[in-house]
Amino acid sequence: MRVHIQNPTGEDTFAITEAQWRAALERGGGPVGLDATFANDAAGFESGVRDAEVLITWNRELVARKATLRTLAPRLSVIGLTSAGLDPLAPFDWVPDGVTLVNNSGTHADKAGEFGIMAILMLEVRFPALVAQQQKGEWRPLFSSTLEGKTLLVIGPGSLGGAVAQKARGFGMRVIGVRHGSAPHPDCDETYRFTELDRVLPQAEYLLLTCPLTPETRHILNRDRIGLLPNGARLINMARGAVWDQDAVCDALDSGALDGAITDVAVPEPLPPDHRLWRTRNMLVTPHICCDDKARYNDRTLDVVLLNLRERAAGRPMPNRVDPQTGY
Amino acid sequence: MRVHIQNPTGEDTFAITEAQWRAALERGGGPVGLDATFANDAAGFESGVRDAEVLITWNRELVARKATLRTLAPRLSVIGLTSAGLDPLAPFDWVPDGVTLVNNSGTHADKAGEFGIMAILMLEVRFPALVAQQQKGEWRPLFSSTLEGKTLLVIGPGSLGGAVAQKARGFGMRVIGVRHGSAPHPDCDETYRFTELDRVLPQAEYLLLTCPLTPETRHILNRDRIGLLPNGARLINMARGAVWDQDAVCDALDSGALDGAITDVAVPEPLPPDHRLWRTRNMLVTPHICCDDKARYNDRTLDVVLLNLRERAAGRPMPNRVDPQTGY
Repeated sequence: MRVHIQNPTGEDTFAITEAQWRAALERGGGPVGLDATFANDAAGFESGVRDAEVLITWNRELVARKATLRTLAPRLSVIGLTSAGLDPLAPFDWVPDGVTLVNNSGTHADKAGEFGIMAILMLEVRFPALVAQQQKGEWRPLFSSTLEGKTLLVIGPGSLGGAVAQKARGFGMRVIGVRHGSAPHPDCDETYRFTELDRVLPQAEYLLLTCPLTPETRHILNRDRIGLLPNGARLINMARGAVWDQDAVCDALDSGALDGAITDVAVPEPLPPDHRLWRTRNMLVTPHICCDDKARYNDRTLDVVLLNLRERAAGRPMPNRVDPQTGY
Repeated sequence: MRVHIQNPTGEDTFAITEAQWRAALERGGGPVGLDATFANDAAGFESGVRDAEVLITWNRELVARKATLRTLAPRLSVIGLTSAGLDPLAPFDWVPDGVTLVNNSGTHADKAGEFGIMAILMLEVRFPALVAQQQKGEWRPLFSSTLEGKTLLVIGPGSLGGAVAQKARGFGMRVIGVRHGSAPHPDCDETYRFTELDRVLPQAEYLLLTCPLTPETRHILNRDRIGLLPNGARLINMARGAVWDQDAVCDALDSGALDGAITDVAVPEPLPPDHRLWRTRNMLVTPHICCDDKARYNDRTLDVVLLNLRERAAGRPMPNRVDPQTGY
């Protein structure tokens, strides 16, 4: 089966190499008989996809070329993307008949799990306040405790949130998941629907946002719901800046109603230097890095794509198939 | 058996309460027949210790009263201290014959384990640099990876260092311990003596200091040894400020030879506002809070003391007995 890998044009840092591809095959990834071409320019794309059944590429590379696929890639049946969120490719009316989109959901889980438990531990230790003290040169002990027995509420316990939930339970936390459906999550002690969110918010000593951004989740943590949190609650946002009311969060930190927050996402991104979020009391901001594993990103993406091709070759559903109706 | 608990004078925050004492007994702690008195002043001390076999108190309370014990407390046989390090009580020539000192080593392990793994994760994520970027309002992604397969060197894998080592192995790290003797440590993959330190330093992607401060460990991480660390190593000090050459560490951070450091200890403490340590590049400073669990400190101290009394009543050695020769 012919596979074409279209790497980013003019940027080598994240390019998938032939060595990475061969190593992924050797890990036992795909069905037999895969034969790959590589390119990072327009001519290479045209010749590479001409007889390819599988295209592996980046959202931003595909955005520029998606309209040409029907004519340039007549044999295409699977597109594997190097992202979990495919929102830049929506709406999906450009997808040729018979072509399935596959994302790399799962690639980010290990890194996200480590970032999430780090953030929870930092908030327990009151690191946002300690950083402010360091900036003033103030040596003032602030005492804290351990995570055991405390409650973490995860809004969107999917691949990312589930990885954090698993780590949190390893530290003895009780984990409540709130999600679109009602399916229990193996790493949550209890699982509720979005419609039941208001009822469980008062238990959230720690609140983690890891849901996809959809019309249903936009501002899901609004000003009213922030008011339902227990006094001194701690927040972590690893989802998108628009899933919470950013100004309401800042107000609650300024007033002391919330004890601290760590966010890896913001509105807008990149955040301008003079933005309020940078200087809000007990808020730590990281620049959208919580889920990208520099050392292993391509390896894991290729493992996911090859797993899906193996499932397809065996006649089973591809686990990372993206529904063009919902985009995830 | 009569127990006297002498709480700090003029300070209630950390006082051991009767409720905490009763709860510790109910957890199944001590031998039967324990009967406690409580005081926080001189008169209460004199009447409380008069027929006490066990005294539970603080280093700083005992410093002022140790010379009076031979006359005031003729029946005394065990003193349980609410600290792991008893260096303020040295030299130990004041200890009456037949009296055994017991520290609370182990009390700090859970909290220390959480602080240590938090610090390692923060250094992996490059949090010191991210904090500096936040201060400038600079949104610039810095990518990192996960801990799996990386090497942590622990100098002093006792109760604190062992707790961190255990957590680190849970994240897939390889842990090397370096200690006074050659006894293997259950949470270290390999254990070496202090005399072999130079040989293993080049493997230390992460270096954690958790040794007691003794003549042997003072400046154990000196300028020469910092030079043996791999380029871009990360350091964590949860021991004492004097176990490393603080200025040499700052120089190596300033030059970029070290990638980052988190220290909970300093020379001097409290650190004055204009001290270099506060402003060293990629150094985060916390004010000696890494091991004190606000919510559980007294409970765990009492559990340790009662465990030792139970072992003694059973005719076995007390595990927390402090050797007056070494002070630990």
